[in-house]
Amino acid sequence: MRALLMAFLLSVTVPALAQQPALNLMPLPASIQLGAGQMILDASFSAGINGHSDPRLEGSVERFLTVLRRQTGTPPLLMRLTGDPQAKFVVEAGQANRLVPELGEDESYRLEITTNNAKLSAATTLGVMRGLETFLQLVESTPQGFAVPALTIVDRPRFPWRGLLIDVARHFIPLDVLERNLDGMAAVKLNVFHWHLSDNQGFRVESKKFPKLTGMGSDGFYYTQDQVRELIAYAAARGIRVVPEFDMPGHSTAWFVGYPELASAPGPYQIERKWGVFDPAMDPSEERTYRFLDKFIGEMSGLFPDRYFHIGGDEVNGKWWDANPKIQAFKRAHGLKTNQDLQAYFNQRVEKIVSKHGKILIGWDEILHPDLPTNIVVQSWRGQESLAQAAKQGFRGILSYGYYLDLMWPAARHYAVDPMSGAAANLSPEEAEHILGGEACMWSEYVSPENLDSRIWPRLAPIAERLWSAPSVVDVNFMYRRLEVTSRWLDWLGLTHNSSYPPMLRRIAGSDQIAALRTLADVVEPVKDYTREETAPLEPTSLMPLDRLIDAARPESATGRHFGAMVDAWLADPAAAPAKEQLRGMLNEWRDNQSSLQPFETQSFLLQEIIPVSQNLTRVATAGLEALGYLERGERPAEGWKSQTLAALGDAGKAQAQLLLVIVPAIEKLVEAAGGGSPAGLSR
Amino acid sequence: MRALLMAFLLSVTVPALAQQPALNLMPLPASIQLGAGQMILDASFSAGINGHSDPRLEGSVERFLTVLRRQTGTPPLLMRLTGDPQAKFVVEAGQANRLVPELGEDESYRLEITTNNAKLSAATTLGVMRGLETFLQLVESTPQGFAVPALTIVDRPRFPWRGLLIDVARHFIPLDVLERNLDGMAAVKLNVFHWHLSDNQGFRVESKKFPKLTGMGSDGFYYTQDQVRELIAYAAARGIRVVPEFDMPGHSTAWFVGYPELASAPGPYQIERKWGVFDPAMDPSEERTYRFLDKFIGEMSGLFPDRYFHIGGDEVNGKWWDANPKIQAFKRAHGLKTNQDLQAYFNQRVEKIVSKHGKILIGWDEILHPDLPTNIVVQSWRGQESLAQAAKQGFRGILSYGYYLDLMWPAARHYAVDPMSGAAANLSPEEAEHILGGEACMWSEYVSPENLDSRIWPRLAPIAERLWSAPSVVDVNFMYRRLEVTSRWLDWLGLTHNSSYPPMLRRIAGSDQIAALRTLADVVEPVKDYTREETAPLEPTSLMPLDRLIDAARPESATGRHFGAMVDAWLADPAAAPAKEQLRGMLNEWRDNQSSLQPFETQSFLLQEIIPVSQNLTRVATAGLEALGYLERGERPAEGWKSQTLAALGDAGKAQAQLLLVIVPAIEKLVEAAGGGSPAGLSR
Repeated sequence: MRALLMAFLLSVTVPALAQQPALNLMPLPASIQLGAGQMILDASFSAGINGHSDPRLEGSVERFLTVLRRQTGTPPLLMRLTGDPQAKFVVEAGQANRLVPELGEDESYRLEITTNNAKLSAATTLGVMRGLETFLQLVESTPQGFAVPALTIVDRPRFPWRGLLIDVARHFIPLDVLERNLDGMAAVKLNVFHWHLSDNQGFRVESKKFPKLTGMGSDGFYYTQDQVRELIAYAAARGIRVVPEFDMPGHSTAWFVGYPELASAPGPYQIERKWGVFDPAMDPSEERTYRFLDKFIGEMSGLFPDRYFHIGGDEVNGKWWDANPKIQAFKRAHGLKTNQDLQAYFNQRVEKIVSKHGKILIGWDEILHPDLPTNIVVQSWRGQESLAQAAKQGFRGILSYGYYLDLMWPAARHYAVDPMSGAAANLSPEEAEHILGGEACMWSEYVSPENLDSRIWPRLAPIAERLWSAPSVVDVNFMYRRLEVTSRWLDWLGLTHNSSYPPMLRRIAGSDQIAALRTLADVVEPVKDYTREETAPLEPTSLMPLDRLIDAARPESATGRHFGAMVDAWLADPAAAPAKEQLRGMLNEWRDNQSSLQPFETQSFLLQEIIPVSQNLTRVATAGLEALGYLERGERPAEGWKSQTLAALGDAGKAQAQLLLVIVPAIEKLVEAAGGGSPAGLSR
Repeated sequence: MRALLMAFLLSVTVPALAQQPALNLMPLPASIQLGAGQMILDASFSAGINGHSDPRLEGSVERFLTVLRRQTGTPPLLMRLTGDPQAKFVVEAGQANRLVPELGEDESYRLEITTNNAKLSAATTLGVMRGLETFLQLVESTPQGFAVPALTIVDRPRFPWRGLLIDVARHFIPLDVLERNLDGMAAVKLNVFHWHLSDNQGFRVESKKFPKLTGMGSDGFYYTQDQVRELIAYAAARGIRVVPEFDMPGHSTAWFVGYPELASAPGPYQIERKWGVFDPAMDPSEERTYRFLDKFIGEMSGLFPDRYFHIGGDEVNGKWWDANPKIQAFKRAHGLKTNQDLQAYFNQRVEKIVSKHGKILIGWDEILHPDLPTNIVVQSWRGQESLAQAAKQGFRGILSYGYYLDLMWPAARHYAVDPMSGAAANLSPEEAEHILGGEACMWSEYVSPENLDSRIWPRLAPIAERLWSAPSVVDVNFMYRRLEVTSRWLDWLGLTHNSSYPPMLRRIAGSDQIAALRTLADVVEPVKDYTREETAPLEPTSLMPLDRLIDAARPESATGRHFGAMVDAWLADPAAAPAKEQLRGMLNEWRDNQSSLQPFETQSFLLQEIIPVSQNLTRVATAGLEALGYLERGERPAEGWKSQTLAALGDAGKAQAQLLLVIVPAIEKLVEAAGGGSPAGLSR
């Protein structure tokens, strides 16, 4: 089936690409002016720095050359950084950017490529970093060798805050895994790594002042302060800020394991193994809480150089505050009517501490309160509405609603979310300036170092484009075409979103022979939103292996998307006979796949839950073939066939083993068409 | 085709495996006694150390658990090392092994697994390391979960010296790449990493006494002394010795770039970019040569703790000695008749230096000379003959002849080479004891960090088996069956021999759509022995990219091997109709593959040399289909068909783009059979 599919893709995408400049850039630059011809990247290629230079700039060019050599298979003796002003590729930065990148620094650049040479110029080293990534994405294989097209690109970001949150609390993520994801972030021009460092399930940063935070709250899985510094330097070298988050007063059980005196109820506490919103919260009525936080935030403010300090502030259910008479008395004494008021009081106290240590506070929507100073930043997980509300009150904000990678949405759905849309669309120009950008969020309930990359990539790239490129860049088909190339291109950076897939399937199959399992895995997706938790056969915990097909399957099935497009195209023009043969080939393979998978059923316990999914695939493909047959013969199916088949497809479309068979909707279209469905019926 | 092939493999290998214990161990242990049932590896699994413990032993168990968790997808909170003596898996070492592993230390172990628990006991930590690797290879997926079979294994190595040489001089190999290969070595129980650190093309170790060695002789690609210490510690933690080689008096141009006074002719010198045997050699007639070597070897003896110090000594052509009147006069003055005598004089001088610094000298065959002390070790690249000769003279020896991985031999050919065969078979028991083992050699003319693993693995595993397992373990089919599983299993260690293949093909195709290229790549092999050099269109150098199909193609095509076996099986029993359909399916895909590849021809310059290979594949497959048709119909082909077809196949079987189409011999068998060839004709 894959060979067939590939042949099909070739025939439809090559002509389509020919109509647009075949540039696989993501994010798309602000302006591209194509020239004539190309510059060949051969042994004569070298890079030079003109004017201002500094170690970071040199490091950026060296890293660029390393990736370029990898892409082109060039030995390390070639494509070097030279002192020669006649280098083929000259890089010019007006000045260094800040040692630690800061919000709002100039990231613009200009890249000019002729058939003879190339020049990248930028106001700062930061702009050079962005432009170097663009250059790498331009490299293509041509009949003459590796080359970049002659062109002029002038580019700058739309938003100054373009981030990715990785939750390292629920599942610990080792430093090298974070680092390769920072490489990916830099490649798509993101500039903020939001490090979610503490939660109920773990406290992940060494504190020298409070060693029991990790000593008792981390299971031994945490970053030393040296490692934190290493990661910050790694990020800074790539023009990425690191914003730490220490979630408080809720999401804080892990703090209480070592320091129960911080909590609103007596301990002892244990590291939480389950997922969800839990009752424990800090005690906002005790001065010792603020003394602790003052010391802790002071220590962390020294460790994390970024101006912004994230205190979380989300999902405090208030149950323990209600249950504690002393806290109730405190509320009454301070005229705090609700728990929201109490949290606002807490936030004001913490804001003063954060501010005292030279930082600016950032927190989730819930912190929004008029008593906080307007220099704070609100991160909205609830929608553009709260962002707009904040902006109107003079607060700055970033959007994360719509960018939750753990919800397993297709890229197009994230891509459609714009920080300036919805309620934010009606802001005045001054108010609109308060919206700084957005952050994708990778919450890690179902994420391990093995599958993290596949949950982040490639879907992060379109979100990065949303935050970098012009708001008019919204063509979904064009996005997907570039995304498929970008996804593969990211492999050169060492990201494992593609490469970890076959080993995970081999583990599930208990065998090296995964052809049949892969055919099935290619057409399923994990259930969406919070369905995994809601439909879990056993209550999920951090002790559970992430070794099921739901953990290996891609959040978005490319095969499913292609098949849907093929069905649509063929229904629109049924005379296209090759398309029909391709559809038939795919459907035949799917129908017969269960018989190929069956011999493995008895080998591996991990396959057993998948068998019903595989049987559904046979049913669904059989229905598709029947529909194709009726359509081909121009024959009217028997009475009741359509309704019975649609009912069966409805069943097969339901989640099984927490997986969705993504070809069902397209097959339903075929059945509708075969059964004489109206065009309206086709549009579903 | 792959789906077809997989289905076929399934049907033939599963019953075959059922006849033998389905243990995929490589190397095969000295003794296996299968028990009943299995031990399930679930959340209750933990490991404990009983009796003697030390950090290295703990580290070994921790590393074991890390790989076990990776194999089984277990979260890091489970499968831990506990202090509990009731742990499911108890490890016992009688004592620590030496801090730096030494030749001849006890590596034996005993592994007992019951349905309830497992115990590994060994005389030393070294034996524990070997046994832990065996345990990992026993893990399999079962209907009940991951498990290891109940059994008792008693194991010990056949030879005490089991090594791999990696040449880091011709192409520099970064430390992390070496380290993952050390993981692989440990997995197949190899115990010597022979680090070929200097050659004409580069000097790769920092010398503080002679900084120009790397300052001028390395292009900036070398290991610092800290990195060397890191690698030695990494190896020691895995029970692997590190033997450094500094090749002298030949293969030494890189030394002369910084220190021309060492050479037999005045400089200046440049780092050599070409491959082969070159004229420059050290001046054995000058005392300053020995003073330099005394200081240098003294420094390196402190850096490298192993008792053995390799001085190379191979391939001195003597031309510059002949051309230097002073050296000629020296020879006459010392009664040295030949250049061999002169080199023997040099070796004796160097041996005294090496010995003075507490080391034992090892060198290639050429150093063998009765005037050297008998404690030295001879490494034979020329055959068992010189090994036997050395043993008879009282020297110890190791075999590398027959284990050159760069010659692109199939695994079976390496596997057939036994250090004790040939001339060595006739040694007396005392003499035979002088043969310590062997070393595979990875010379790096055509090796980059990207394809190194694929040149070493999986073919190193059968060589490791030859050196560890009993000499009676020679069944090639059984070896290949285990090798396929071992190759995939090694993926868990991070080796890239499998994972680097698709990205390299994508680079060649200049596209993500590599299905057709892969079908072709799967049935070609690089030319063998030194043919690549001999038939190179341009003289190869270290500046050339290693980005062609010859660099990506596997040294041994599994598809070719399987196809050959299928043809043999079907010709032996032509009534087996499914086999015929599978053959036809494969041949059809190969015949049609060029039409799938063709659209890419014009895209990528790297594809262009491959097109004739692809066209040959079409021709060859067409011939195979014709033969199949005649055989199926029982029809006699037309006069001349057989001879014409065989002639055409002979052409298609010749190297093209330095690649061999490996299915040609099997197709020739089909043509012979269809043309009425005799059984003798079939056996070719």
